[in-house]
Amino acid sequence: MTTDGLAILTLQCPDQSGIVAAVSNLIADVGGNIANADQHTDRESAVFLQRIEIDGAVDWPAFDAGLAQLVEQFSMQWSLHRPGTRDRVVIACSAELYCAADLLTRVSLGELDVDVVAIVSDKAAAADLAAQYAIPFRLVDGGLSGDSRAIQEAAFAEVLDDLAPDLVVLARYMRILPASITEQWNGRMINIHHSFLPAFAGAKPYHRAHHRGVKLIGATAHYVTAELDAGPIIAQGVTPVSHRDEVEDLVRKGRDVERTTLANAVRLHLEHRVLVWDNRTCVFA
Amino acid sequence: MTTDGLAILTLQCPDQSGIVAAVSNLIADVGGNIANADQHTDRESAVFLQRIEIDGAVDWPAFDAGLAQLVEQFSMQWSLHRPGTRDRVVIACSAELYCAADLLTRVSLGELDVDVVAIVSDKAAAADLAAQYAIPFRLVDGGLSGDSRAIQEAAFAEVLDDLAPDLVVLARYMRILPASITEQWNGRMINIHHSFLPAFAGAKPYHRAHHRGVKLIGATAHYVTAELDAGPIIAQGVTPVSHRDEVEDLVRKGRDVERTTLANAVRLHLEHRVLVWDNRTCVFA
Amino acid sequence: MTTDGLAILTLQCPDQSGIVAAVSNLIADVGGNIANADQHTDRESAVFLQRIEIDGAVDWPAFDAGLAQLVEQFSMQWSLHRPGTRDRVVIACSAELYCAADLLTRVSLGELDVDVVAIVSDKAAAADLAAQYAIPFRLVDGGLSGDSRAIQEAAFAEVLDDLAPDLVVLARYMRILPASITEQWNGRMINIHHSFLPAFAGAKPYHRAHHRGVKLIGATAHYVTAELDAGPIIAQGVTPVSHRDEVEDLVRKGRDVERTTLANAVRLHLEHRVLVWDNRTCVFA
Amino acid sequence: MTTDGLAILTLQCPDQSGIVAAVSNLIADVGGNIANADQHTDRESAVFLQRIEIDGAVDWPAFDAGLAQLVEQFSMQWSLHRPGTRDRVVIACSAELYCAADLLTRVSLGELDVDVVAIVSDKAAAADLAAQYAIPFRLVDGGLSGDSRAIQEAAFAEVLDDLAPDLVVLARYMRILPASITEQWNGRMINIHHSFLPAFAGAKPYHRAHHRGVKLIGATAHYVTAELDAGPIIAQGVTPVSHRDEVEDLVRKGRDVERTTLANAVRLHLEHRVLVWDNRTCVFA
Repeated sequence: MTTDGLAILTLQCPDQSGIVAAVSNLIADVGGNIANADQHTDRESAVFLQRIEIDGAVDWPAFDAGLAQLVEQFSMQWSLHRPGTRDRVVIACSAELYCAADLLTRVSLGELDVDVVAIVSDKAAAADLAAQYAIPFRLVDGGLSGDSRAIQEAAFAEVLDDLAPDLVVLARYMRILPASITEQWNGRMINIHHSFLPAFAGAKPYHRAHHRGVKLIGATAHYVTAELDAGPIIAQGVTPVSHRDEVEDLVRKGRDVERTTLANAVRLHLEHRVLVWDNRTCVFA
Repeated sequence: MTTDGLAILTLQCPDQSGIVAAVSNLIADVGGNIANADQHTDRESAVFLQRIEIDGAVDWPAFDAGLAQLVEQFSMQWSLHRPGTRDRVVIACSAELYCAADLLTRVSLGELDVDVVAIVSDKAAAADLAAQYAIPFRLVDGGLSGDSRAIQEAAFAEVLDDLAPDLVVLARYMRILPASITEQWNGRMINIHHSFLPAFAGAKPYHRAHHRGVKLIGATAHYVTAELDAGPIIAQGVTPVSHRDEVEDLVRKGRDVERTTLANAVRLHLEHRVLVWDNRTCVFA
Repeated sequence: MTTDGLAILTLQCPDQSGIVAAVSNLIADVGGNIANADQHTDRESAVFLQRIEIDGAVDWPAFDAGLAQLVEQFSMQWSLHRPGTRDRVVIACSAELYCAADLLTRVSLGELDVDVVAIVSDKAAAADLAAQYAIPFRLVDGGLSGDSRAIQEAAFAEVLDDLAPDLVVLARYMRILPASITEQWNGRMINIHHSFLPAFAGAKPYHRAHHRGVKLIGATAHYVTAELDAGPIIAQGVTPVSHRDEVEDLVRKGRDVERTTLANAVRLHLEHRVLVWDNRTCVFA
Repeated sequence: MTTDGLAILTLQCPDQSGIVAAVSNLIADVGGNIANADQHTDRESAVFLQRIEIDGAVDWPAFDAGLAQLVEQFSMQWSLHRPGTRDRVVIACSAELYCAADLLTRVSLGELDVDVVAIVSDKAAAADLAAQYAIPFRLVDGGLSGDSRAIQEAAFAEVLDDLAPDLVVLARYMRILPASITEQWNGRMINIHHSFLPAFAGAKPYHRAHHRGVKLIGATAHYVTAELDAGPIIAQGVTPVSHRDEVEDLVRKGRDVERTTLANAVRLHLEHRVLVWDNRTCVFA
């Protein structure tokens, strides 16, 4: 399912007859071929969602003109990604570096085809990691006193504004964000939470999981919204645990789930496989 | 994803431009609506496969006429399932009854919407089970001497011919079938094998898994073909095992994987979600 | 790991040096052999827990006398299960029968080695199922008016008192129980909840899971305590779901997780593999 | 389950009465405490295996003397690992670097507590990776002509002799090893194979898995023996795949399974949790 050389069209609109025919006619008419398509109709909310991979010798101006008509006709939200663009990504982290390190390893091995434009952190811990991968490091702390939340948040917001990435990955960035940031980066900011949401939202999920005596722990990658750990879920993973596992074991086992769940969610997003509606996601995997 | 009241069209053909547009146009033209669609292009073999759920006030004669044109134009193989049909199923088993019992429980609870027309077995063990569910029981053994393979195979073939089911489920029917049977029921006979194929094809997979010291065991539901345990795979499941598990434990743990894997495969088949090409399956789940 | 013909000793006590040596010496001294042993020290609460399978020509009076000394010396809680006993189980359910039917199938196939002494329900739905397996059926409803919670609870309590089972399995018995019942059957009553606890405790977990857009659903088998869905967890299972799954699909997929998770928990309990402390379980699987 | 500051005793011997009592008495007698113990009796081969974590103020000379007696009495194989030792590990790889990179990341983050003394490869590809982590790189190729298998094997053997590590990890080292090497490093050389063994042993498992149309792919970490991909299995992992996955997708999905399975096996080995008998492993996890 490599998407090299493919254009990707995603769209959603109120469900009605004729959408599929209209879109596929347009693609055929302008010289395109549907290399892959996936669609979903959510019956509860009567929403139609589709993702189409297009190849062939497309007459793009003709496509754009035709799409504009369809958008009006069907009240579509849409996005089109022509081949050859490469996303610019910011990775944010705090003291724990394993998710950031995992993403950087994947980028350096070519598994994730992006430009990491900076590592941003409220702690100095990631500076060496950034240097190891020759990525700019930006410290966003609480100012000279080191403890002002407002200063810290402003610094983070400013760095993001400055870098203007296509995607922000919160790879264990342990700060609750103000609504001003979550709204600005809505749909373009992915967080990894170290529990199987909605269980153990908020602080210290592994401690609480241990105390509750669960037999499985998990991780959840989701788009960030104003409400903590309540955004649209992109991917979740779990792993079994037992009475032998102390909190530190849950942390160790959970790390592998967090790493792979986050990397998977980032890849799905970058390949335009994730559509959001009603605070839920449609993942055309 | 209930399919009540929906017509289901499945098709496959050599890949080329315009198929999706042509099919969706046809459906729209005859008054139908695409309630759900899933498609796949296998690039290696250049085959296009699609499954469409159709609702709306379809003009079926017009649809049939239009489809005939498309079938010729695109060299399609296709099938159409109008709402309201109910498949007739034969369950075959030997001495172990847990897969058969599981299927019968699901049918009696309405989880599988079929008519079980008979339980067929080379052993008398299932007679009580059949009686418990008020299903006809047909013994197909090796004749008066009880040990003639040819007589047994002929008896099985004859019972199937007589019952003429839509689907035969080999729910731990421990006989190797002659090609005459596998060819006749090609694509309409599902077997559960108690290993993660292609590992441990053939006899005594749990013993061999134990001897090899694997850390996971599995089960595979597949369409039956002439070559033993080599048909198109519909579904597979696994479960972890450890050094503590003796062969009898593998058998116990494996049973749950077999049951759910087989039931899942049967459901997928009955909902026309499984298309076969190149000895592989496309499962539009 | 068959336990036929084995005595099973379980014990827990404050952790200290010399417990293992003392217990294994006692077993060796009275002619026993440790066929299998598993132990755990919970460092946080400094509790030692052990499960020992004993075979050999044990001098049981000598064992009992020796054990009494150890119990006093180490302040042990313990239980001893001699071979040959067979637990008496009550299955309670409401309108949904799939968990009850699954347990009954397993008992009838010899997978669970117990006597089901009755099916108890607040609905008449299970009467046919009970008849099919020739198990007594006891209806415990809300009296002539059919709607008195107090009458219903008293009826349930009375039936349990009357039947005096070793274990009560709440196989989708959709009633919140009063503390008088949960306390009486503490450690001897297992419930299956159709979510991955602590997520979606309480009513309608599949609806809430669908609304939240989770990518995995689960089931939890736990001992019942006064607080709803908060008792010690014995086993949990999960299965992946996607945007294609409507609530009814979650229900269907969840059923298989519920069935196997509950059956597994019941088996673990019956084999004396589950020890409880601090509202958590030690599962010597 | 941190093992810092603990001594770890592993042992195996023909099963007989009194072993547990004798060993636990010895530990108690010399001032030790059993922090954790796990044991297994393989009934088929009548072998007893045990792993004990010991803390407390142990009189080690007294322990050694007592253990020597038990070793003779019970014909034990054993190993004792006092706290404070740190294993020296060699990582071997070829052109694919993701397993090696993953291990190095884990070591640098403190997840694996070892000294990586060198990266050894038959290809130059890993040189940069080694430099990035400041680990010595040793190229072991086929000599000036670059294509002599005998020269290459001798070079690899010599480097291992020279480095004398405690453990060799074949992290996608794509060479079949001669028996001279596998025998020398028996029990101290772990390989990751990119299939669910015994399925798809040998070359190109992802291609063969795709061709067979399996619905799950896997990875297997095992000790290397003379027979290819046939050594004792330490850990296995799987992940689901579908008809949408081309070979390159299997490769991508498989990488995550390989990485975590290998890292898990290495950790289990380093914590002395893996005992081998009869070409199988006992994993006291």
